[in-house]
Order: sequence, then C-alpha cells, then structure tokens
Amino acid sequence: MAMDGYKGFLGLLVSALLVGFLSVIFTLVWVLHYREGLGWDGTALQFNWHPVLTVTGFVFIQGLAIIVYRLPWTWKCSKLLMKSIHAGLNTVAAILAIIALVAVFENRRALNLPNMYSLHSWIGVTAVALYVLQLVLGFCIFLLPWAPLSLRAIVMPIHVYSGLFLFGTVIMTILMGITEKLFSGQTTPAYNTFSPEGIFTNTLGLLIVLFGALIFWIVTRPQWKRPKEPDASILQSNGGTAEGMEGVTMSLGGNADKSDAEINSDVATRKRNFGLDDTGQRSTM
Amino acid sequence: MAMDGYKGFLGLLVSALLVGFLSVIFTLVWVLHYREGLGWDGTALQFNWHPVLTVTGFVFIQGLAIIVYRLPWTWKCSKLLMKSIHAGLNTVAAILAIIALVAVFENRRALNLPNMYSLHSWIGVTAVALYVLQLVLGFCIFLLPWAPLSLRAIVMPIHVYSGLFLFGTVIMTILMGITEKLFSGQTTPAYNTFSPEGIFTNTLGLLIVLFGALIFWIVTRPQWKRPKEPDASILQSNGGTAEGMEGVTMSLGGNADKSDAEINSDVATRKRNFGLDDTGQRSTM
Repeated sequence: MAMDGYKGFLGLLVSALLVGFLSVIFTLVWVLHYREGLGWDGTALQFNWHPVLTVTGFVFIQGLAIIVYRLPWTWKCSKLLMKSIHAGLNTVAAILAIIALVAVFENRRALNLPNMYSLHSWIGVTAVALYVLQLVLGFCIFLLPWAPLSLRAIVMPIHVYSGLFLFGTVIMTILMGITEKLFSGQTTPAYNTFSPEGIFTNTLGLLIVLFGALIFWIVTRPQWKRPKEPDASILQSNGGTAEGMEGVTMSLGGNADKSDAEINSDVATRKRNFGLDDTGQRSTM
Repeated sequence: MAMDGYKGFLGLLVSALLVGFLSVIFTLVWVLHYREGLGWDGTALQFNWHPVLTVTGFVFIQGLAIIVYRLPWTWKCSKLLMKSIHAGLNTVAAILAIIALVAVFENRRALNLPNMYSLHSWIGVTAVALYVLQLVLGFCIFLLPWAPLSLRAIVMPIHVYSGLFLFGTVIMTILMGITEKLFSGQTTPAYNTFSPEGIFTNTLGLLIVLFGALIFWIVTRPQWKRPKEPDASILQSNGGTAEGMEGVTMSLGGNADKSDAEINSDVATRKRNFGLDDTGQRSTM
C-alpha cells in the first residue's frame, strides 16, 4: 500500500503506541506501588480505578480510535468496517470513563466527601457527557444508513473538531487530576520535597501530553489520510446502492477541510478521474 | 471583501474577543478582590502578577496572534505587514510570559519556597522555552528574507502544529495552576465548601477553555484562510522581485495541509488561473 512517508508514519505510530502503553503502565505502578492498590469497596482502593480507567480508556483507547482510519493496511477494508471499529473503540472508552466516574463518586459517598466542587470535576463530567453525546450523534449520523449525505457533509467537520477538542480536554482534565491529587497533601514525603511519587507522577503527566502530541500530529497530516473510496458506480456492482452511497458519503465527509461547494466540484473531479488507483486519487485532495 | 460565512466568522470572532477579554477581567478580579492585590515586593502581591500576565499575554494575546491572518479586512494588507503583526503579538506574549515567570520565582525565593517540583512548573517552563524557540525560528525562517522557499515549505506545517500545540499546552498549564492554587489550601472558606472564590476561579478556568475552543475553531476552518497572493509576476510589477517571491513563498507556506508535490502542482494551477480575483483563487485550494 503506497503512502507518502510510510516509514515516518510507522515510526510515529510505534512511538504513540509505546508512549500510550507506558502511560497505562505508569498509572498502574502509581496506584499499586505508591498508593493503596485496587479494589471495589468504597475506600481509596476503589478511587484508584479512576486514574487507571481514565488513562486506559479515555486517553489510550480514545487515541487509537482517533487514528484508526490512518492505518494504511486497513485501507483495503470497507469503510463500514472501519467506522464500526472507530465507534467500537470509542464505546469502550466511554464505558471505561463512566466506570471511572462511578468509582470516584462511590468512594466519595462512602467517605462522606463533597463532590463536584473542583475545576477537574466540572470539566471532567462535562467531557464524559459530551463524549457520550458525540458517540450517539456519530452513530446515528455516520453509522446508521439513513442520514442524508448533505447532513453527513455538514456534520463531519464538527464531528472531527469536537472529537479532537474532547481528546485535548480529557488530557487537560487528567493533568488537573494529577495536580489535585498531589496538592491535596496526601503524599509522603511531601510533593514539594521532590518526592519519588511526585517525580514519578509528573513523568506520567508528561507521557500523557507526549501521547496527545503524537496523536494530534498523526491525525492532522493530510498525506496520511485514508484514500477516497472509488466512485459509487464501482461499488454498486459489488455492494449494492446502499454500500456504494456509503463509500461516497464518507469520502465527502472525510473532507473535513472543504466547503460544500468544493465537495461538489470534488465529486465531479473524482468522476473524471474514474479508474485512477487510490494513490492517484489522493493527490486530487 | 467576499468570504464564505462572513457573518458566522464575525460572530465567532466577537465571541472570542469577549470571552478572552472576560478571562483577563476575571483574573484581575480574582487577584484584586479574592487575593491580596498586585505589587512587586516579593510577597503574594508579586506572585499575583503571574496569573494576570499569563492569562493576558500567554492566552489572550497569543490567541489573537494565532487568528490574525484570518481577519478578512487585513487581506488587502501585505503579507509582510501581517507577518510582522503576528510576530509582534507573539513577542509581546513571550515577554509577558517571561515576566510572569520572574514574578513567581522572585516570590518563591523571597519566601524561601522550593521551586520546580510541580507538573504545572515542569510543563509551564518548558512551554515558555519552546515558545521563545518557536518565535526565534519563525522570525529567522519566515520573516527574514533569505530563507530558501523549500525550507519555508517544509517548516510551515511544523510551525503551525507547534504553535497550536503550544497554545493548547499553555491552557492546560493554566488549568493546573488554578487547581494547584485552590488545592494548596489557601482559600477561606475552603474550596470544597463551594466557596465564592472557588466557583469564581473555576468559572475563569471554563472561560479560558472556551476561548481556546473558539480560537481553535476559527483557525481550523479552511474557508476562512487568507487567500493566496496573486501570482509572483503580478507582484513584481509593483513590489520588485523580492516582494514578489515573498508573496509566493507565503502562499506555499500557508498551505500547511499540502505535501511538496501538491504545492508544486498547485503553483502550476495558480499560474493557469492567473487573473482570477482573490475569492476565485481561494476555491482552488
């Protein structure tokens, strides 16, 4: 599968996976080694699921969901399959984020602590709610077959922007969570003595920012975009009209950086280019 | 000056200015009403310049610097003028950010407090250093006339990405700073009792996130991009060769979402379209 700068892509992808995986490991080491461990009993052991699940689901899995269309070896897979994987990963991330919220609310109720007073909680709960909304709207508009093409074309730039903005917001929220935990004075020795826990947890924060930086770079390189589907008339022969329209729709929708007028002229261009291979078509974007 | 969705642009621009201005006002009210006020004497009064200068310079002014090319009434101004304004605003932001660092370091030295142990400080100092690096490199590569066009074309996508990433990182850092301040237990009544100061400062955090969201939306809409300069041969007649090359260079550089090959074919396209007005040219992007 031809791709501009394939080696560069692969290097960044492997780095992102490594940094994301390391973030999850660091979070586990943090709660198991520096904190009380894991459990589901209302104590700090239950709270500790909160960082583990948010870093695993809301950062690592959400990050993978964002770049899944960009893996060149999936470009021969149907768009429907890739959309299902994108939606599936985001659903897993949403479920883990919700369990992470339950863990902290139950822990605070058991300890009779007040809830929802911090900026971390305000932004975090809003982010989970908007993430679920994004998931439901995305499912209805892009995965179910009956949304009109024009609606998909209008919503796609908003979907892309909201998704990336929510991903950034989640990273911000986690950095506030780390800060909150380390400043609420529960570490021994104190955070301001450069305690091993403080340095370790700061490093976790840096890893999460680095993971975000890599995902943002990968997802904003135009040359690594999934190529447009072949013209609808090709797909109709092997997938029926619905599948064919699907292909065209997502090609349109995928052009998050084009206005409606440009999309229309682009369809015309694509029709003229009928018969070019994927790589050839990509250069018309 | 014709622009797709001009009213929408104007609405978002006014909202961004309002929210950014409100963020600065909220920060001033915070330090003047809820905290000790402002001064330069090593005490908390000096520390308080830290939030005021970071929100004013590193958020509001940096945000303006990011979108300055998108103001349609500047599209008739020369690219050199706009680049100077962009660089100038970023220089002001950098100077305010550095003074903000001096304020907090001098305050902590006067109080004999340890420095640089928090995630906020690690990321914040790194962000200031990288921001200055971005400014110096941007000045040498895009504003000084002698950088080769090929270098500008290669660096532009990195410059755009780094700039937006740093802007996001600064917002993250400020949210950590708010969290740090409110959790270090200096508020009366306590933060977790939904104190007026807590709610007010959380609201400031939300305003800053909203400002970031508006700037990111405005700067990522392709239809609001500054139109390409007319072909170099036009400019040569009224600006000499150097000015003409300038125009072409920045048109190339401005296509942060195009590969080199696409840029080259694009130049050819533009040459064919010679004579179209700005708006007509834009639709070829």
